[in-house]
Amino acid sequence: MQKLGFERRGGVEGFLRALEEFHGYRAPGVVIGGFMVDLAVRQMRGHEMLDAVVETSKCLIDAVQLLTPCTAGNGWVRVIDSGRYALTLYDKVTFEGVRVWVDPKKLAGFPEIERWFFRRASKKDLPLEVLNPKIVAAGEGILSWRRVRVLTGAAGKRHAPEPRLCSDCGESFRAEGPERCPGCRGSYCEVVE
Amino acid sequence: MQKLGFERRGGVEGFLRALEEFHGYRAPGVVIGGFMVDLAVRQMRGHEMLDAVVETSKCLIDAVQLLTPCTAGNGWVRVIDSGRYALTLYDKVTFEGVRVWVDPKKLAGFPEIERWFFRRASKKDLPLEVLNPKIVAAGEGILSWRRVRVLTGAAGKRHAPEPRLCSDCGESFRAEGPERCPGCRGSYCEVVE
Repeated sequence: MQKLGFERRGGVEGFLRALEEFHGYRAPGVVIGGFMVDLAVRQMRGHEMLDAVVETSKCLIDAVQLLTPCTAGNGWVRVIDSGRYALTLYDKVTFEGVRVWVDPKKLAGFPEIERWFFRRASKKDLPLEVLNPKIVAAGEGILSWRRVRVLTGAAGKRHAPEPRLCSDCGESFRAEGPERCPGCRGSYCEVVE
Repeated sequence: MQKLGFERRGGVEGFLRALEEFHGYRAPGVVIGGFMVDLAVRQMRGHEMLDAVVETSKCLIDAVQLLTPCTAGNGWVRVIDSGRYALTLYDKVTFEGVRVWVDPKKLAGFPEIERWFFRRASKKDLPLEVLNPKIVAAGEGILSWRRVRVLTGAAGKRHAPEPRLCSDCGESFRAEGPERCPGCRGSYCEVVE
């Protein structure tokens, strides 16, 4: 049996240490993300093959990468950006899943977390040593969840076309379209001579 | 001094073990990626703050996540998909960097790797136990690299707008545009009643 959720890191403390090592510091968003993943895997118990979606490109994906076998590189977790702090864990085969989100209504009971979440507190005003224990104490108290079905169109893996050589740079690439790779049609960098 | 490249995992063998634990198996693309990252960090020695770009959404990002402090969640590594098997490590401040890629011309000297790379070999025909030692033996022999300057426009971090509540789902979201979050305008999942 694969270990999922906090159990995968030997508990919450082990998760926080792994987070610091992997992500660089104990980012509050990923701490919350740990509780989101832990709730989701518990609700998905019995499903062996899980995929994940995170709805923001910030932070949350690292909680999934630390507490499940899903990584950005193996493609089992993907970002589908809705700007919401939410994630879904779902069965690869049946597409049945659980969506978990930070519930603004529940934040009202946790004023420090609420101020941080809505960016009303500076880092000086609310340092990590104060904020993170509040998040751990709140645990799942700030979360809501629902059962969902992932739409197969949205979840369908795109299969990249076969590799071929770019008529311009000569590198191998995999993309639809012309014989010139997307990088040669506009790149993020220029060569330094 | 932070440890980067294979040194971060105690050598190539340590990297392969970490890869298996994190990614799920010793994916040949990530094994190659390890040598790409190791070459890049050596060329960027002396630069303390590094960001990374990977040019494919498949595999390669996990080599960066395992051998540098850059993770998908902390935003120090991003996918800018050109379909090419290439990555760039660059200085966060000066934008000077090194781009490394798998060089099709050099693959000719390594027929098994070439067959796998161009998808001419089945997994049965060329199992991991045969392919991966060939990749490790080839090492940087299949790679090329150049100094590059990352264009600040492409590399500029997008700052998400302040959080606000969606007029529809009531969740907090961060995105430009109307009062209705992108998830409510079209989601990847539906609620199961």
